Amino acid sequence: MTQNHLAFPDWLSVRAQHVEHVLDDFLPAADVLPARLHEAMRYAVLGGGKRVRAALVYAAGQAVPVSGSAVAVNASLDHAAAAVELIHAYSLVHDDLPCMDDDTLRRGRPTTHVQFDEATAMLAGDALQPLAFELLARMPIAPALVGQAVQVLGRAAGSLGMAGGQAIDLLSVGTVLARDELQTMHSMKTGAMLAASVALGGIVAGASSQARQALDGYAQAVGLAFQVVDDILDVTADSAALGKTPGKDADDNKPTYVSLLGLEGARAFAGELRQTALQALGPLGDSSARLAQLADFIVLRDR
Amino acid sequence: MTQNHLAFPDWLSVRAQHVEHVLDDFLPAADVLPARLHEAMRYAVLGGGKRVRAALVYAAGQAVPVSGSAVAVNASLDHAAAAVELIHAYSLVHDDLPCMDDDTLRRGRPTTHVQFDEATAMLAGDALQPLAFELLARMPIAPALVGQAVQVLGRAAGSLGMAGGQAIDLLSVGTVLARDELQTMHSMKTGAMLAASVALGGIVAGASSQARQALDGYAQAVGLAFQVVDDILDVTADSAALGKTPGKDADDNKPTYVSLLGLEGARAFAGELRQTALQALGPLGDSSARLAQLADFIVLRDR
Repeated sequence: MTQNHLAFPDWLSVRAQHVEHVLDDFLPAADVLPARLHEAMRYAVLGGGKRVRAALVYAAGQAVPVSGSAVAVNASLDHAAAAVELIHAYSLVHDDLPCMDDDTLRRGRPTTHVQFDEATAMLAGDALQPLAFELLARMPIAPALVGQAVQVLGRAAGSLGMAGGQAIDLLSVGTVLARDELQTMHSMKTGAMLAASVALGGIVAGASSQARQALDGYAQAVGLAFQVVDDILDVTADSAALGKTPGKDADDNKPTYVSLLGLEGARAFAGELRQTALQALGPLGDSSARLAQLADFIVLRDR
Repeated sequence: MTQNHLAFPDWLSVRAQHVEHVLDDFLPAADVLPARLHEAMRYAVLGGGKRVRAALVYAAGQAVPVSGSAVAVNASLDHAAAAVELIHAYSLVHDDLPCMDDDTLRRGRPTTHVQFDEATAMLAGDALQPLAFELLARMPIAPALVGQAVQVLGRAAGSLGMAGGQAIDLLSVGTVLARDELQTMHSMKTGAMLAASVALGGIVAGASSQARQALDGYAQAVGLAFQVVDDILDVTADSAALGKTPGKDADDNKPTYVSLLGLEGARAFAGELRQTALQALGPLGDSSARLAQLADFIVLRDR
């Protein structure tokens, strides 16, 4: 961690520990049949990750005045935070498979198909996805909000969101994407689920339509910044800090913001997006402080 | 088709055509970006299948007195019928992949990964799943029922349902399962989604808890009968009728009801399950006639 954000990771790491417990509770125990599948699901989800998506859910939930029971909203934020982390974890498991990126290292550990086998890894991912939707459906808040949450997550995870972005990424290997094409790809692949995390926090807390709009503006900018910084770190960070093989995207001839804008250009673009994100939070006032800190963390992180 | 059920397939084939149109409408068009992913999703879902799961949704919806607007209930039955077919289609795509069953023929056509490629097939399956949940979330019925529906589908598709059953199936290749183990595997792998289809029809139509119980008894028996008959047909039907490679399960040393009970024993067991299913419908009266016909079809079908 650099000195720029020494104060921030405390909250993030407390949140990350909390969501780790929540996920541990929601995932079937490793001795429940089929045990090997449940072991693989737990391996894929638990014990790692910055939990940025979960943190966005909680921070967005804090950013708006809570409508309804605070206890029910807090419990529901746990469900939503777990749901986005489950979707993220499944996407990493499938993305690492030999027919996709063929990665063997993730968060410093063997990827799920290396630790188990390909079929078990695919099925673990397949089973994490419905668990995410089930958790949203079990949120103890107004049923109309539950329906909205399921729609948001369904859209973000699907062919017009994350899975669609991965499909474009797959087809783009070895080609040169223009900046707007690269932006479309990333806004689907990474941005959609980050934006959904923010939106879910707002929905659960009962945000007004004006607040939802502010959250959405923030989420769009932060989602893109996240990917730009990922591309920068892929070039500048070392393997130990990154927990995955650095330089892999460049090796694979994948288009990145660094290959498109150069390192300094990419850094400048990330800085602009940070400003856009912070400005979008204006209407929400002081309660959006955690979201502002998260935008800083996303842009200033070193891994 | 044998003469035993000449009258029935008319309704089933009209329903199948209807759900084909519904799925066509709900799936993104093939020219929407990412086009190749959407083509693969449409290839995997459209143009084939008996649509038994969709038929179970509609038949269960008819079996109980509708509570609320009939127009809204009918529209919602379309959403639920499409949702179960999307989940079924995704499971076939993933099941056919080289790391799973490695099948090249499905419904008389090349499997999705043969027609496209492995990565696209996996992503198409991944993207069909959230679309199913999104469709349920968009049902124009009481939001509380929407939440119940999402929970039912999430549970049925997940590690304690379909995906879990596939994991057990995978581990059981080359081993001899006892009858209760085989039954557990199939009740998860096939039965869970068939039961969810029946349950969703009841939920959408606003079934009473007594009616839901009757539907559940029917669904458990029919779900198991479906798999027993599949095992029988794998031995007795020819490739053209089946639309897939017959005898493949036996070749793969997969445990089946025929290998466990013998052909005649398996037939007798299917007959018993049919009786159990019909008896369970008793409390629902004449409105459950379609469900009774479906039980007959499932047991008497020749492909």
